[in-house]
Amino acid sequence: MATLGTSHRIQGDAKGGGSSGFYFKTTREAPSEASDVISHGLLVRGGFIQQIAAGIFNLMPLGFRSAEKIKRIIREEMNAAGALETTMPVVQPRSIWEESGRADSFVPPLSSFDVAGRSMVLAPTHEETVSIMARSAISSYRDMPLNLYQIQTKFRNEPRPRGGLLRTREFEMKDAYSFDADQAGLDASYDAMAHAYRQIFRRCGLNAVMVQADSGPIGGKDSAEFVLVADSGEDLILQCADASCDYAANVEKAEFRKSINPAEDELEIEKFATPGVTTIEALADMEGVLASKTAKVVFYTIRGRVHVVVIRGDYEVNETKLRNVTGGDDVRLATADEVSDAGFVPGSASAIGVDSSLVVADDSATTSSNLLAGANEEGFHLRNVNYGRDWTAGIVTDIAEAAAGAICCECGESRLRADRGIEVGHIFKLGTVYSAKMNIRFDSPDGERREVLMGCYGIGVGRLLAAAVEANHDGYGMMLPVAIAPFEVALVPISMQSNVEVRATAETVFEELTAAGIEVLMDDRDEAPGVKFADADLIGLPVRLVVSPRSLKRGAIELKARSAPASDASDVQIAEVVGRVRSMLRE
Amino acid sequence: MATLGTSHRIQGDAKGGGSSGFYFKTTREAPSEASDVISHGLLVRGGFIQQIAAGIFNLMPLGFRSAEKIKRIIREEMNAAGALETTMPVVQPRSIWEESGRADSFVPPLSSFDVAGRSMVLAPTHEETVSIMARSAISSYRDMPLNLYQIQTKFRNEPRPRGGLLRTREFEMKDAYSFDADQAGLDASYDAMAHAYRQIFRRCGLNAVMVQADSGPIGGKDSAEFVLVADSGEDLILQCADASCDYAANVEKAEFRKSINPAEDELEIEKFATPGVTTIEALADMEGVLASKTAKVVFYTIRGRVHVVVIRGDYEVNETKLRNVTGGDDVRLATADEVSDAGFVPGSASAIGVDSSLVVADDSATTSSNLLAGANEEGFHLRNVNYGRDWTAGIVTDIAEAAAGAICCECGESRLRADRGIEVGHIFKLGTVYSAKMNIRFDSPDGERREVLMGCYGIGVGRLLAAAVEANHDGYGMMLPVAIAPFEVALVPISMQSNVEVRATAETVFEELTAAGIEVLMDDRDEAPGVKFADADLIGLPVRLVVSPRSLKRGAIELKARSAPASDASDVQIAEVVGRVRSMLRE
Repeated sequence: MATLGTSHRIQGDAKGGGSSGFYFKTTREAPSEASDVISHGLLVRGGFIQQIAAGIFNLMPLGFRSAEKIKRIIREEMNAAGALETTMPVVQPRSIWEESGRADSFVPPLSSFDVAGRSMVLAPTHEETVSIMARSAISSYRDMPLNLYQIQTKFRNEPRPRGGLLRTREFEMKDAYSFDADQAGLDASYDAMAHAYRQIFRRCGLNAVMVQADSGPIGGKDSAEFVLVADSGEDLILQCADASCDYAANVEKAEFRKSINPAEDELEIEKFATPGVTTIEALADMEGVLASKTAKVVFYTIRGRVHVVVIRGDYEVNETKLRNVTGGDDVRLATADEVSDAGFVPGSASAIGVDSSLVVADDSATTSSNLLAGANEEGFHLRNVNYGRDWTAGIVTDIAEAAAGAICCECGESRLRADRGIEVGHIFKLGTVYSAKMNIRFDSPDGERREVLMGCYGIGVGRLLAAAVEANHDGYGMMLPVAIAPFEVALVPISMQSNVEVRATAETVFEELTAAGIEVLMDDRDEAPGVKFADADLIGLPVRLVVSPRSLKRGAIELKARSAPASDASDVQIAEVVGRVRSMLRE
Repeated sequence: MATLGTSHRIQGDAKGGGSSGFYFKTTREAPSEASDVISHGLLVRGGFIQQIAAGIFNLMPLGFRSAEKIKRIIREEMNAAGALETTMPVVQPRSIWEESGRADSFVPPLSSFDVAGRSMVLAPTHEETVSIMARSAISSYRDMPLNLYQIQTKFRNEPRPRGGLLRTREFEMKDAYSFDADQAGLDASYDAMAHAYRQIFRRCGLNAVMVQADSGPIGGKDSAEFVLVADSGEDLILQCADASCDYAANVEKAEFRKSINPAEDELEIEKFATPGVTTIEALADMEGVLASKTAKVVFYTIRGRVHVVVIRGDYEVNETKLRNVTGGDDVRLATADEVSDAGFVPGSASAIGVDSSLVVADDSATTSSNLLAGANEEGFHLRNVNYGRDWTAGIVTDIAEAAAGAICCECGESRLRADRGIEVGHIFKLGTVYSAKMNIRFDSPDGERREVLMGCYGIGVGRLLAAAVEANHDGYGMMLPVAIAPFEVALVPISMQSNVEVRATAETVFEELTAAGIEVLMDDRDEAPGVKFADADLIGLPVRLVVSPRSLKRGAIELKARSAPASDASDVQIAEVVGRVRSMLRE
């Protein structure tokens, strides 16, 4: 950790000329710009970050140290996986984004400006530049596998930056790109990155779950997210509750084993009056059946036309799955006006009589018999509606959203558990999308000219720090894991300015810990004990040592883990401090 | 060097899944975009950098490794000097540049664009953001000294980027900013940075000269540049030829002891005809005297008005000095039209009869008697012109440009030597310029509210790499110093694909050197020896080891320093390789 400058005194010895103290600025109250996201408030109050504009921050020395430790772990694991570090530019000519076809379609839109008459953009990601680098070095299958990465500033014009470092406009990201000659190579590169990511999060002290993720309408490619479980997370993930089953996916992607209604013979369709009944719940109640005996209709506008999406009444439509099966980004819930303009009767609708090209059905609705459904007439529904006989759909597949309690599709036995979480990493098999457009080709062993298979792999550094705080804090402040805390030890001398023995002991302990390679922040300010304890708790260094006149009367200093209650503080002899701290940090 | 991933095989073992080889792409001829600057051609040909747009580059793995080594040395020395690392944003609100008064005056103009309706700029330097960070932490003199630095991407819309990494639009820079309570503190912080910079360049293996530099019209503040001597440099520096005298300055700033004409009584002024004589040389020739017996006039337009600048004929005007003494940026040579419109007679002009507020004189012209000067009448000059009696000047001071051969102003004995060089660092006492505008104030020990004294200190990382190549190369390629070469050893096995013994020996040597902590690049490609030798020379790794069937017959492998001629290659026993390489790297 030499390049982090190891230990520091907050005040310094004020002799000038390079013997400065440590930048230290905490506040009791979060400034007005801090949102209600806990990590935002704590990182601002702890003096880790400072907002310069919406979604744009200074990383102050404490924040820098944590970020640097994260980056160091990332680098070591990327290098161990054979990836090679590079640096690609932030400012790029718009022309290379035209080459890849993303100049106008990237979301959010690229920030653009002219340089010497040429249109430039700020890079939100680096597939284009890495492709230019790769195609200059790859001519034969022998030049692969190749994995190029960087840790570099990126800029995305997020419409709503939120939560401090959780979603910023400018951010530092580790992005890696793999290049392989065939699918087996890409699979191996992807697996190597998945392994590296697991190592990175583990070494950072974070319990990130690798979940299957949706790979968008490109389709067919593998993609996984690493999600840190935290109540404040925006993402929802589903995991098999059985620890021996490793199924985990985010909600956009998650599959599950659907319940099967008992087989029945198809019965005669019957219309009946349902005055005032416009929901599935009311309909099932009225008939005294489970929602699984109903066919629900949801109206979506897909590429400008209203579609009827049918799903069994006990499930909900997963819009991401719907978008993927209909092959387009242009999918959204239809408005009430669009529905009525298209001649549908909301609250009493079904797919009966609708052109099947405008019907998309979840397989739950097509494999169940004799369902209740709308009569397409206000105040009326139908009994015994059956797929095939009464209605058909252009697309029948799985478009249902998994929820907690559903049966795991992998083990087929246990139920899924739902957790909120924060995405801290994403790995993705891109295939030939970019190599085709950016012309990255190679001579195969059999002499053919082929397109390179690419993968991309990202971790946001600041986001990871914020997520770590979300997952590790209490009412007093942060409790970052040892590996990514800015210092390892808070050394708090009490009455240091007036008590010679306290000062001498504190200096001795400071020097001994530092010499042992332990990173100490000594609070040598002339502040009240309460202020020092509150600051130590706020920035959350893993181990706290207190040297006070009272403890010295007992011939000891006080040792406590940040995560332990105050009652857990224990006396330790000065000669044993280094050993005790070291073992506490290892735990 | 663990995070650089130590040694690499170029080809790798091609087993996939993270066992990739090293990105390696050299070319015989520099691509068309490479200018005639040697480092540009070599860095492009060696696969260190790749141009993405004018002044914007990819740093490829070889280039990244060298840049990373430079950055590591910078960090270690900055931390040792007590500076604290941070990260400040690339994208900044224009409003903070308005606060500092530089939004519209920065040269080259800031690149601007809107984000969510707010005007943003790309930061070419970070005084504004560091001021925001500092003012939140500094409230008392006890909070200083403080030195905050970062290594971060910057963007300057250079009108003419040149020479590869020598002058780019996007570049990575280490910028540090010191904050002190008084002048003694600023002096100490400045001296600490000067010391750190000397250490940085020394550890990089570069002989940078610290020269006094002009600090611009702000005036009165110290400023120094670190200049790497190289024939291709754009800067001119002057150093005392006597090694025991440490005077060194760049040409904008350099002073010298002017020669003194023998004292004479003032003689009667005499007009005489000088048909066709319009230069000082012709005038002195005609009269058979030295140029030091003449008073030369140069016309400058200063803030829109033509001024007469007078200097003794043996000296030249230094425009930077002139700009500083006249207190403005708006200083340039007058055009011929401006001169004649103002009523002056070029070729026969003097300051006689000119309002002294429009005359600026170098002291060389005011302390010499009986000079030849123009008669302000075409075809006529004057003899025995004397300052005070015949003409006066509103400003009399030193505005002369130092040249090789002038007497050193410091020791007063030896002559100055002139060298071309490349600026690789700049340190600067800013004083209270930014703290006044950005409101960084503190409570002094005597209870007064004062403005903080700032210094700023910069090193361009890529520029330093390019300068190192300019100063260290030969006709075959780069010869970077050991500390910043991408690898330490080029291991070149010959006929490795066909000769089992060569392969086995090369692998053994590779593993042993790597285990000894030495960074090896093994050229395991199936290429001809000539190709491998040329590439090794081009990228210029400090030590070359050749394992060939022939050398193995002698029971040895061949060792040569990159900088030594081919005839210096010597045999070394395999058992002794590690020791010999290590001692060669130490030399």
